[in-house]
Amino acid sequence: MTTTHTSLETGVSSAGVGIFADALDAQAVPVTRVDWRPPMAGTEADLATVVTDPLRAEANRRAVEAVLAVQAMVVDVAPAHEVLGLQKGEFLHAGPPLSWENASGPMRGALMGAAALEGLVEDPEDAEALFASGEGVSLAPCHSRRAVGPMAGVVSPSMWMWVLEDPEDGRRTYCSLNEGLGKVLRYGAYAPEVLERLRWMSRTLGPLLAEAVRATGPIDATAILGQMLQMGDEAHNRNRAGTLMLLRDLAPALVTSDADPSDVAEALAFMGGNDHFFLNVAMPACKLQLDAARGIEGSTMVVAMARNGTEFGIQVAGTDDEWFTGPAQIADGLFLGDFGPEDANPDIGDSAITETAGIGGFSMATAPAIVRFVGGSVPDALATTRRMGEITLAENNRWAIPVLEFMGAPTGIDVTKVCRTSILPQINTGMAGRLAGVGQVGAGLVTPPGEIFPKALAALATRTRSRADRSG
Amino acid sequence: MTTTHTSLETGVSSAGVGIFADALDAQAVPVTRVDWRPPMAGTEADLATVVTDPLRAEANRRAVEAVLAVQAMVVDVAPAHEVLGLQKGEFLHAGPPLSWENASGPMRGALMGAAALEGLVEDPEDAEALFASGEGVSLAPCHSRRAVGPMAGVVSPSMWMWVLEDPEDGRRTYCSLNEGLGKVLRYGAYAPEVLERLRWMSRTLGPLLAEAVRATGPIDATAILGQMLQMGDEAHNRNRAGTLMLLRDLAPALVTSDADPSDVAEALAFMGGNDHFFLNVAMPACKLQLDAARGIEGSTMVVAMARNGTEFGIQVAGTDDEWFTGPAQIADGLFLGDFGPEDANPDIGDSAITETAGIGGFSMATAPAIVRFVGGSVPDALATTRRMGEITLAENNRWAIPVLEFMGAPTGIDVTKVCRTSILPQINTGMAGRLAGVGQVGAGLVTPPGEIFPKALAALATRTRSRADRSG
Repeated sequence: MTTTHTSLETGVSSAGVGIFADALDAQAVPVTRVDWRPPMAGTEADLATVVTDPLRAEANRRAVEAVLAVQAMVVDVAPAHEVLGLQKGEFLHAGPPLSWENASGPMRGALMGAAALEGLVEDPEDAEALFASGEGVSLAPCHSRRAVGPMAGVVSPSMWMWVLEDPEDGRRTYCSLNEGLGKVLRYGAYAPEVLERLRWMSRTLGPLLAEAVRATGPIDATAILGQMLQMGDEAHNRNRAGTLMLLRDLAPALVTSDADPSDVAEALAFMGGNDHFFLNVAMPACKLQLDAARGIEGSTMVVAMARNGTEFGIQVAGTDDEWFTGPAQIADGLFLGDFGPEDANPDIGDSAITETAGIGGFSMATAPAIVRFVGGSVPDALATTRRMGEITLAENNRWAIPVLEFMGAPTGIDVTKVCRTSILPQINTGMAGRLAGVGQVGAGLVTPPGEIFPKALAALATRTRSRADRSG
Repeated sequence: MTTTHTSLETGVSSAGVGIFADALDAQAVPVTRVDWRPPMAGTEADLATVVTDPLRAEANRRAVEAVLAVQAMVVDVAPAHEVLGLQKGEFLHAGPPLSWENASGPMRGALMGAAALEGLVEDPEDAEALFASGEGVSLAPCHSRRAVGPMAGVVSPSMWMWVLEDPEDGRRTYCSLNEGLGKVLRYGAYAPEVLERLRWMSRTLGPLLAEAVRATGPIDATAILGQMLQMGDEAHNRNRAGTLMLLRDLAPALVTSDADPSDVAEALAFMGGNDHFFLNVAMPACKLQLDAARGIEGSTMVVAMARNGTEFGIQVAGTDDEWFTGPAQIADGLFLGDFGPEDANPDIGDSAITETAGIGGFSMATAPAIVRFVGGSVPDALATTRRMGEITLAENNRWAIPVLEFMGAPTGIDVTKVCRTSILPQINTGMAGRLAGVGQVGAGLVTPPGEIFPKALAALATRTRSRADRSG
């Protein structure tokens, strides 16, 4: 058995995991390791076409190199109407495209809250009729505007956004500011305190962060992510160290700003009291890296995984902006208070962009304490990272996992490897209540619906055949 | 093979490490595991006496319970002359008692710098004659004043100290503020910039921290240490997460203080730029816990390990304040720049109080990234924590190690177990240059000189026999 999973054709070097990994392996085999599984049903012909595509090896090599080269810098914080050009009545949401009719409870709740926040209705409950009518309102995926949003991921014009930039080419990505846990808009809650917190974030927190980021200068989110993986964070459901490093970096500039010291103290306490605050920086950093590989003809690498609470969708480097979707699953995990599986909404949020980039569930091995939040066992967490190595194209050496002897995070999901092995990507996720207004009910482990990978493979095969027809 | 190491006689429950640990074990055995070694030479008779001491089991149970019960709270920051009653000309140092004649280069360098800081001499070089004469100056171990100091550990009256308190009984411990890495007093450097930094710390940093701690209220250092072990810190040579959590806790009060915002910003940048800042809180927290077990007749538990750069000494719960000493060793590790083993001073500092309490080298498994700083391999780091379980009395469940399935830190070194197994405590340490004025040259792994444990055992045996004679 070998720990090397980098295919020769990509030319990316692989760090062996050695004797320690073998010891882990010896234990993980009977539980989780798949030595051989049949390819996903019905994929044989498409696999044969795509795997022999003459563009594929070079396209995947380019895709991986593009992703690994990006250093994502936090350069600004600004309102969505400014940086995304979002107009009154326009709302972004997580996941693939969605209509109000098909929206789940937490997505509806978040949209209703956002409509009240923007002054379209007085009472969030009145927004149901507004969205049902469709008059003066429109919905679009965050991804369609280079943004990402956790859970419901609803963005409205007045919300302030993190702005990340690739200094090499000026590309940018965006994400809203994290509200904390419990009753928050992104989990579908819209009670008065939820809206009041959002107003404080737009009135006080956003402008303070903007001033501090501009005074501090660009902050290297990719490097912070590398440190986090040495500090027990997998950067999806654990962002403790990342949040603290961001606070450390911004605190001196916050202190010397002209702002009211009590506002600064409140902002520092809010950030320091919310272990997930950095998630909303990690996500656009991952998107900025992955977007570098969009549109590479022949590449079978996944560039986005995202859920809207109804459907789970992926986008692939070699198929432009097409979404391949299937029904979102319900996570298996741990529940807050008296909540149980019957209270949980299907999987929701753009946060699976972290797994797409190789962290989150893919780097669970480096964050064993996560099992107390999302469930599972420590050996499973270690085995999961190794298993994800079987469906990815490379290891990211900037994101080393110390306990696996500094193996790089398994990065770049290959649609052909998923179809060939039937191993599905592992995602760590929060769980929203299925009813609008409830908020978070738990956290757990989930996978995409299996059928979306054969769908993506079929599209890749169609393009491959079409190219062969044209040249032949 | 079993992972349970808690002896029945202590009555402390032990968490099994289970299937994952067995997998680690399978690998660690050939390299580091000692299934059986003869007892240390000449210890057989004393072992027979002490192991059958009728007081021992109950004394060790009480010692362990006392240590594990302490919640160490940061309650103040204040000058040493105030809280330790240190007078002009009085200097504290790391390790067991020491004379100027026997002091190593870095210890002399630190004392010379401190003499200049206190205005006893203008030029640090002139302090050599002063200390050689002994006129108006005196040396005493930090431990003799309920204090601890990293590396040279020199404390002089004007230095500001962290003050930790056990809220149950009001006991206190103390430690100076951490200066950062490189050319710093505690590594024996005394250049003008070293003294200028110390003056800034006394003039600005100390008073700011004092105001912030008093405004914030007691900070739970024991709980922060528990979080650190989930965040890749072993709290001796990695204190990154701990430093960030301390900064998070103090930042709001610093911002709303009446101090000059530029001083506050400088203080925040200094703390945030020094990953070791929390070490000087971790050490007195460990001492506060261990001091709770001092003076328990019959207990064979080590309550302090400390080095003065010449000698390594231990103190034991059942032998009051007696030191058992031997020559300090030179660490095996990684060197900065062009430095090599010939540049290194023997082991120095009170920081081995962290290992005495179960963290540092004893909890290396939770901080695998440490091997890039102190040397060794990741499998060794994992195996070390399990090996330390063989010479300790308990697991500290408040300090859980996630990767070993939340096993508690191995706590309470038992002199009899060390003598019986010949397994020596493992310490992670910084290395000072052997010449005064040089500063840090590296970091590495070190053990105490083996002979100090038979010395301590002999003293315990003498007391056991004396008690038996009196009662018999």
